[in-house]
Amino acid sequence: MLVDPCRPTTAEPMREPPYTAVVRELPATVPFVGPETRERARGRPFRARLGANESVFGPSPAVVAALAEAAGESWRYGDPESFELRADLARAHGVAPENVLVGEGVDALLGYAVRLFVEPGVRVATSLGAYPTFNFHVHGYGGELVTVPYRDDREDLDGLAEVARRDPAVRVVYLANPDNPMGSWWSAAAVARFAAALPERCTLCLDEAYHEFAPAGTSPAFDVDDPRVLRFRTFSKAYGLAGLRVGYLVAEAGVVANFHKIRNHFGVNRLAQVAARAALADRDHLAHVVDRVAGARDRIGKIAAAHDLVALPSATNFVAVDAGGDGAFARRLLEALVERDLFLRMPAVAPLDRCLRIGAGTDADLDLLAAALPEALAAARAAG
Amino acid sequence: MLVDPCRPTTAEPMREPPYTAVVRELPATVPFVGPETRERARGRPFRARLGANESVFGPSPAVVAALAEAAGESWRYGDPESFELRADLARAHGVAPENVLVGEGVDALLGYAVRLFVEPGVRVATSLGAYPTFNFHVHGYGGELVTVPYRDDREDLDGLAEVARRDPAVRVVYLANPDNPMGSWWSAAAVARFAAALPERCTLCLDEAYHEFAPAGTSPAFDVDDPRVLRFRTFSKAYGLAGLRVGYLVAEAGVVANFHKIRNHFGVNRLAQVAARAALADRDHLAHVVDRVAGARDRIGKIAAAHDLVALPSATNFVAVDAGGDGAFARRLLEALVERDLFLRMPAVAPLDRCLRIGAGTDADLDLLAAALPEALAAARAAG
Repeated sequence: MLVDPCRPTTAEPMREPPYTAVVRELPATVPFVGPETRERARGRPFRARLGANESVFGPSPAVVAALAEAAGESWRYGDPESFELRADLARAHGVAPENVLVGEGVDALLGYAVRLFVEPGVRVATSLGAYPTFNFHVHGYGGELVTVPYRDDREDLDGLAEVARRDPAVRVVYLANPDNPMGSWWSAAAVARFAAALPERCTLCLDEAYHEFAPAGTSPAFDVDDPRVLRFRTFSKAYGLAGLRVGYLVAEAGVVANFHKIRNHFGVNRLAQVAARAALADRDHLAHVVDRVAGARDRIGKIAAAHDLVALPSATNFVAVDAGGDGAFARRLLEALVERDLFLRMPAVAPLDRCLRIGAGTDADLDLLAAALPEALAAARAAG
Repeated sequence: MLVDPCRPTTAEPMREPPYTAVVRELPATVPFVGPETRERARGRPFRARLGANESVFGPSPAVVAALAEAAGESWRYGDPESFELRADLARAHGVAPENVLVGEGVDALLGYAVRLFVEPGVRVATSLGAYPTFNFHVHGYGGELVTVPYRDDREDLDGLAEVARRDPAVRVVYLANPDNPMGSWWSAAAVARFAAALPERCTLCLDEAYHEFAPAGTSPAFDVDDPRVLRFRTFSKAYGLAGLRVGYLVAEAGVVANFHKIRNHFGVNRLAQVAARAALADRDHLAHVVDRVAGARDRIGKIAAAHDLVALPSATNFVAVDAGGDGAFARRLLEALVERDLFLRMPAVAPLDRCLRIGAGTDADLDLLAAALPEALAAARAAG
């Protein structure tokens, strides 16, 4: 990396530096390809962005105003303790600030959680087809995944608990409730029973990124005395702040203290902290977004039904729509919609991959979907 | 963490979850205490923020405008490839986009670098008193530090190279040029000779966070064929974007590819990407800031000299001022200035800790310093 005029040149290529044993085994994969990457490959922008699990209804106007006001303060590092945001969150959830950790997005927090518990020899239980970024972290820290198939398009709680009990190397279990990519959910009571059924050596990473969209009774009450359950929440979904990178963990104080030992202390940016506080304070906007999302889910269901497709029930801001064939057919349908300038994604494994995952769009977004779907279906069927 | 009405209550406390071997050994420390933490403890705000190595001259007005304009787009995830920013940086540095990695601040990028190369059994060479956050990462991944004392307030290149050559367990060497906390620097030729003197098994993490403030000839030309030297740059200092979290790495393409295997792909926030592009484009603002910083360094030197203190030469946006006594005296002086509402930090170890590190402040900031210093000196001397 340096040009030294005194250094002899050599025809021999430089050797690779000595990466760790874990890194040497890692494949060159990424959890998700971004919509911008596809736009660059296509040479034109998407007209609707329905595949990235963002909130097209945007952040609160109060957030936008707060960001504009705080922009000039960007030269200051953010508070490494996110003290004020943490206090707001603790108050909102009826826990102590010591039970809350603000992080640079749930992806980063999941990475820290994996780092705390996973080393070579450790197994991690998750559902086959669940969140790829979590799996990326598990591999990244040398762990091994044990996967349990979905059952009736829901994560199989009994199956996950059984794997965790049977295999003494399993130390972490991942559950998203509501689920991504299927949009399905379990009741709070079912989740609590599941957590209680896990052996004491297991930490449950309970990803509740879509919590705000779910019916009452989906998320258990917080019990910050139990060090074995970590609750992950985010400002990226209902609060519309995916682009700012801010999420949080609610957990037993001793567990939070262990995150402090490894986290990037100045990692949460100042504008994210400002924006998250403003977002949390605007309950009207949150209610408005949740309402718009419910309406969009209904409309996606109707658009699907108009073409004899089945939209699965959803407690999130997207809907898994059964395309009516196998994974190859759904993939063709997805690509036909992409060609028509709609950005979408779909589950990666069977039998989930018979579905497209369609985000709760604006009216205009869903008009485009309604217009494109019959053509895309025809194209996918013709190519089959 | 879950309340299950069916679960039997028990008087026994829950056991700690099974952390990894590395985590179990980690102490509960943080690299830096933020100014906000001190403000909360004091119960009143600072009047000048001269200790956090930020740029009080702020970001470019073009950045502030771009942030306000992009605020409404905060619902979209940032491009995980930071494609446009990476292209701008590659162009600016005359390298290929594949040689640039944008990250969520240099702290995060240094963490990834350590993760790539450090595992238990690996040693890392750095200077005694150099960047604590880098050391935090080394410990956090189970590595062991080997430290070399500064020599004449500069990092000791010969000493570092000797340690690296002598100890086959050393795989990473850290060098900041210009240096933090002393503000000293080496010439490009000296750094290039140093890199060439390291054994092939060693990766050099060359932290150039203060590059923009240094005299021409301080940073070697980029040589992206050499996989053993990683160059770290940031938008947090001269560009005034510390609060947004965006830095970058310039390295050989194969090394960059290994970062992709482990990094948080969606970690760089959208507004940071927008702001960094606008910042990079405004060369006038950069020149203005560099000029203001040079003026502030001169004035700090004069303020120090007026009280018979010596300001060390600096190629950064702060000045190490020799307080004229030992570490305990400098600490008393620092606290006396903190009591007078100036936020400052100082080096942690002898003999560097005879100095205060004073940031290049605005005229108003330095007026406060000039007014407070004689009183603070008197207080520190009286308490001695």
